[in-house]
Amino acid sequence: MSNHITAEENRQTPATGALEGVRVVDLSRFIAGPYCAMLLGDMGADVIKVEPPDLGESSRTIGPFVEGESLYTMVFNRNKRSLTLDLRSEPGKNVLRDLLRKADVLVENFVPGTLEKMGFDEATLTKLNPRLIVTRISGFGQSGPLSDKPCFDVIAQSMSGLMDITGDAKGRPTMAGTYVVDYSTGLYATIGTLGALQARSRTGKGQVVDVALLDSALSMLMTAIPEQQLHGRTMTRRGNRDRYCAPCNSFPTSDGAWVHIAVAGEPKFRALAETMGNASPADDSRFLDNDARMENVDELEEIICDWTKTQTAPALLECLEGIGVPSARVASVSDLVDDAHLAHRGQILDMDHPKAGTIPMQGFSVQFGDSPMRLQNPPPMLGEHTDEVLREWLSLAPDRINQLREDGSI
Amino acid sequence: MSNHITAEENRQTPATGALEGVRVVDLSRFIAGPYCAMLLGDMGADVIKVEPPDLGESSRTIGPFVEGESLYTMVFNRNKRSLTLDLRSEPGKNVLRDLLRKADVLVENFVPGTLEKMGFDEATLTKLNPRLIVTRISGFGQSGPLSDKPCFDVIAQSMSGLMDITGDAKGRPTMAGTYVVDYSTGLYATIGTLGALQARSRTGKGQVVDVALLDSALSMLMTAIPEQQLHGRTMTRRGNRDRYCAPCNSFPTSDGAWVHIAVAGEPKFRALAETMGNASPADDSRFLDNDARMENVDELEEIICDWTKTQTAPALLECLEGIGVPSARVASVSDLVDDAHLAHRGQILDMDHPKAGTIPMQGFSVQFGDSPMRLQNPPPMLGEHTDEVLREWLSLAPDRINQLREDGSI
Repeated sequence: MSNHITAEENRQTPATGALEGVRVVDLSRFIAGPYCAMLLGDMGADVIKVEPPDLGESSRTIGPFVEGESLYTMVFNRNKRSLTLDLRSEPGKNVLRDLLRKADVLVENFVPGTLEKMGFDEATLTKLNPRLIVTRISGFGQSGPLSDKPCFDVIAQSMSGLMDITGDAKGRPTMAGTYVVDYSTGLYATIGTLGALQARSRTGKGQVVDVALLDSALSMLMTAIPEQQLHGRTMTRRGNRDRYCAPCNSFPTSDGAWVHIAVAGEPKFRALAETMGNASPADDSRFLDNDARMENVDELEEIICDWTKTQTAPALLECLEGIGVPSARVASVSDLVDDAHLAHRGQILDMDHPKAGTIPMQGFSVQFGDSPMRLQNPPPMLGEHTDEVLREWLSLAPDRINQLREDGSI
Repeated sequence: MSNHITAEENRQTPATGALEGVRVVDLSRFIAGPYCAMLLGDMGADVIKVEPPDLGESSRTIGPFVEGESLYTMVFNRNKRSLTLDLRSEPGKNVLRDLLRKADVLVENFVPGTLEKMGFDEATLTKLNPRLIVTRISGFGQSGPLSDKPCFDVIAQSMSGLMDITGDAKGRPTMAGTYVVDYSTGLYATIGTLGALQARSRTGKGQVVDVALLDSALSMLMTAIPEQQLHGRTMTRRGNRDRYCAPCNSFPTSDGAWVHIAVAGEPKFRALAETMGNASPADDSRFLDNDARMENVDELEEIICDWTKTQTAPALLECLEGIGVPSARVASVSDLVDDAHLAHRGQILDMDHPKAGTIPMQGFSVQFGDSPMRLQNPPPMLGEHTDEVLREWLSLAPDRINQLREDGSI
């Protein structure tokens, strides 16, 4: 792990983050909301994760654990400080009101209606702080026939068609191997928050930003909707084949690996065909242009497969690289951790956690030239910063904080 | 399609977009770059898509087509105006220089080094316009051992482990059914651009934003990296099973559908078990808590499967909804186009295209309360706005525009 970026190196970065001075209250749970708030923190915002006393945010009970701390919670919550607050109690709600008066952004992903029941409907929030941006994340959005239904990433994958278009042509609908909808929703929520900050710089006013898992899933359907409505053609799953170009698929090699080969356009196809020598499909009328290759893709892939099976993955990749055809070995997660390029990009970040020790996780996904993302805080332990935040944000005296603690409000 | 949002309804929205007044020059091709620039346009920025004369941006040759216009190009390029420019010619480069002097943002996704070879290295760009934000999108980032390699979405899916963690446990590595990495990279690029705008509001200076397909893919690995490094456990594919909770999987019904059921937490599990009646797995010690259920997930899923197979999808869904267990029928794209909830959310947008007629596509993924995204321009035809933009942005006289056209520069 010696090439990874350490917390110490990271902190030495002198520049300030893009969102320096922006204050965020994060009431969200699980992934989409926490990931949005984490990205705001990565950009330098001061993010306060507000959690119920005792058990904390729901994800804290999800394993795997390191020294009792949930890795799941950790990977979605760096660059935040944790404050406990009982939002069912009036003193707790009062503290939240005070925090929101000082905040620029509120992030929440309760089921729609919950925030309202807690007494924080949109009109109340605007009155509390007209500059507040309220980023609301939900399964189906804040209104509409399905809005009050609970949702998870995979429910949106199911309902959006994403699951139906993933997997082998002859197999069953297949879930993406990761929470693609949670992630994309977190990204859209971040975009919405930043867009609202930009609007506020002109208007002086905050606004509500409403993003939904189902909408985010739908956004990733490429040409599926116009194809369905204009051509009556239902997009469905086709394994690892590209939908628009051929040959693009994963092929087996003699050493038991898979190599993905993506040939787009005639020059690349001719280069591939030439390098295949005797096996070349170049002069075959079935493969004359991309339309023909898409039409006869089974036969084309069989010819290529017969060729790749005679080669080891390293030999095949060297050959493909020589002719400029995009290609890659299908890697396992275990291949990543010592990858020199990822190390150069700082894509594995070692965090010093006060209880769990050194925790490696994904690095920063946006590299800013002058206002770099950086690690300011490892993922917080439950309530780790309650006193500090109440003092800094609200100037509460130790006596007042003790009283809140005795009441069970923090 | 009567419930869809029409262009006319959309234009009637009186408010201005979040990025009103922001000017964007978009040199990018295919998906990640164009999608980033499109989102900036959705938020109200004035986005100029700069394309080579004659054939235009590379994606314009990719089918399917409607009246000769590529649907693929359309779904990634609404809310832009198209200007043709020969960037290999000096007069063409001069026009680009003039555009960049007036711009707030440049979006590009050439292979790293290309922009430099064209004479637009970062120092030159800064001198041209110190306020310019340069959003650079590439496969592997602007530096590092792999930086000069071409890349596509699926190459990053292969190299990041995403492909290896997707698909059936006993099957082969599986590609996500959509370009999840292109989309997420477009989203990170948008976040970077907006973050840089925020930084500029303090510093008065633009900066370079560098995002990469491989970094974006890596960002979506959940707990895979710490699990690999701390526990030596390599995350891999497990079909439609959740990685952290059980039972969560897709189950077959008596009418040939798949229903995804996501049971997280003890109360939901007990509710499910109770409703299963005689088949209830509740009192079985193998399923005592989430850890036990993850351990014995094969057996648990078999019991549930035996139960779901006796029911139709509508009956099963009604039952699960009654007990508050998140669940959904695995939908086909054909199910989406008449969905009442999606219509309520305006998630299918009908665009009036001057040549291709009415084109439906995905709606807006971020709903702003006061500065809504809206359709200002359908996807442009090649060079449709060349004269208009040269007049508006650069105040070029008709004679000068004619001369550029005669020279083949536009």
